[in-house]
Amino acid sequence: MITLLKSPQREVKIGDSGFIVIGERINPTRRKKLADALIKGDMEQVKADAIEQVQAGAHVLDVNVGAGGIDEAATMDMAVRAVMSVTDVPLCIDSAKPDALEAGLKACAGKALVNSVNADPEKLKAVLPLVKKYNAAVIGLAYDEKGISENPEVRMTAVKTIVDAAAALGIGREDLVIDCLAFSLGTNHRSAAICLETMRQVKTQYDLNMVLGVSNVSFGVPNRSDINTVFLSQCMANGLTCGIINPLDTSMMKAFMATELVLGRDKHSRNWNKYYRRGLALAEAAKA
Amino acid sequence: MITLLKSPQREVKIGDSGFIVIGERINPTRRKKLADALIKGDMEQVKADAIEQVQAGAHVLDVNVGAGGIDEAATMDMAVRAVMSVTDVPLCIDSAKPDALEAGLKACAGKALVNSVNADPEKLKAVLPLVKKYNAAVIGLAYDEKGISENPEVRMTAVKTIVDAAAALGIGREDLVIDCLAFSLGTNHRSAAICLETMRQVKTQYDLNMVLGVSNVSFGVPNRSDINTVFLSQCMANGLTCGIINPLDTSMMKAFMATELVLGRDKHSRNWNKYYRRGLALAEAAKA
Repeated sequence: MITLLKSPQREVKIGDSGFIVIGERINPTRRKKLADALIKGDMEQVKADAIEQVQAGAHVLDVNVGAGGIDEAATMDMAVRAVMSVTDVPLCIDSAKPDALEAGLKACAGKALVNSVNADPEKLKAVLPLVKKYNAAVIGLAYDEKGISENPEVRMTAVKTIVDAAAALGIGREDLVIDCLAFSLGTNHRSAAICLETMRQVKTQYDLNMVLGVSNVSFGVPNRSDINTVFLSQCMANGLTCGIINPLDTSMMKAFMATELVLGRDKHSRNWNKYYRRGLALAEAAKA
Repeated sequence: MITLLKSPQREVKIGDSGFIVIGERINPTRRKKLADALIKGDMEQVKADAIEQVQAGAHVLDVNVGAGGIDEAATMDMAVRAVMSVTDVPLCIDSAKPDALEAGLKACAGKALVNSVNADPEKLKAVLPLVKKYNAAVIGLAYDEKGISENPEVRMTAVKTIVDAAAALGIGREDLVIDCLAFSLGTNHRSAAICLETMRQVKTQYDLNMVLGVSNVSFGVPNRSDINTVFLSQCMANGLTCGIINPLDTSMMKAFMATELVLGRDKHSRNWNKYYRRGLALAEAAKA
């Protein structure tokens, strides 16, 4: 199953040969400086984040401008235009508010990914028509109006609801990317296993593309990067085809490339060796 | 399936709740100082390696004394006694020579693991009677006299030969630990994937315990520890229950513990937190 995203200059195929990195940095949550700039309508930090993430290897950029007291629709419009002015990758339009999603979709040239919908009927009704209208793809979160279940079967019921609702509007399965939900191991030591089991079922029953905010799993747990590395790797073996991650976090980038190598997907170890040489070159440049 | 190993003081259950670390350091390959000491019959380095590995978390110690020009049987006898004099963990008696295996098994109190047999009829005839005679368990390597195949199906034929030959001598399946063979990704970019596929089949068809020399996979490849981490993690998801690894390599130790956490096997994250606190304490001690 291939989910096609487009910018005017590039196509990105989720589910094709390589793992797709959706850069998560353009998001004011826990980034006060970015939040302040967004509220003032200053897009310099957004542009810098966009450039830096693409240079670090992001294939798609998530754009979220949800800060307290902001005019989210107007700011989303500005942020999408700002990102497009400095990079040429497809975008992931990220908001809890339908009007901000629509503002982002309207501003975005190409085919975007919408972040996100869930199985709550109200949410489906608000978001899926936008996905259809703007010919976008959409992230479907595996929960519904009753909340988030710790039972993979219940999460699968939510996935089915989303698949059916999308089909009813003529949105193809290739335009759905499922998020099976990862929560902190600090609150439930089985939270990663629940997510992995749900992913196995999505893969077997629907063969849909899947995305995840990987690093949530280690929130509040010591030695986060070790856990993130291993969890990302396990997710990829279970069918994860893209991740919302920080491309500046080299341990994450190494984790997905090492996993592609170990799973036999990196022919002649080309990407791995290229990444290694790039690391050496950067280290040399830093010394000089 | 549980493979029980014993020292006079301890039992180790492979395939029970936790991943079992077989310390690989007592081996003169690429350790000239140890080789020289062994040739002189000096067991101080062997003792130091034994203590250090157990302190670092090894559950079982591999003992290999195969250096050029050595009386391997006599040295194995001395080395096994030396290790038992300073530690109380079960042993893995490791030699290509049946007489050295027998010397080690004779010297070893408890129930040892023999490293190793393969599906070559000559090898089976030489090693399995010793396993039976000394009531040991044995590592079965997934190849035969025709060599090592890159086809998982052919590796499975070797596994079947070993399972059948053991059964014919009355050695139970619980006393077989299969090594599906990991070779360098540097020579074949699919070598890890071939191993993982073979492991899946061993798990499904026989549910046997499995062991692996994990770090082979990264031999000659840049950034070895990243690859080892991810490969060990994938192997565990495919049924690896013990590994022949260097317990002093903290990236390996973190990899198996993070994997147990992510797979939901570390209840209330107890081991992970314990390891983290131990690391902090060691860092504090190093500063003081």
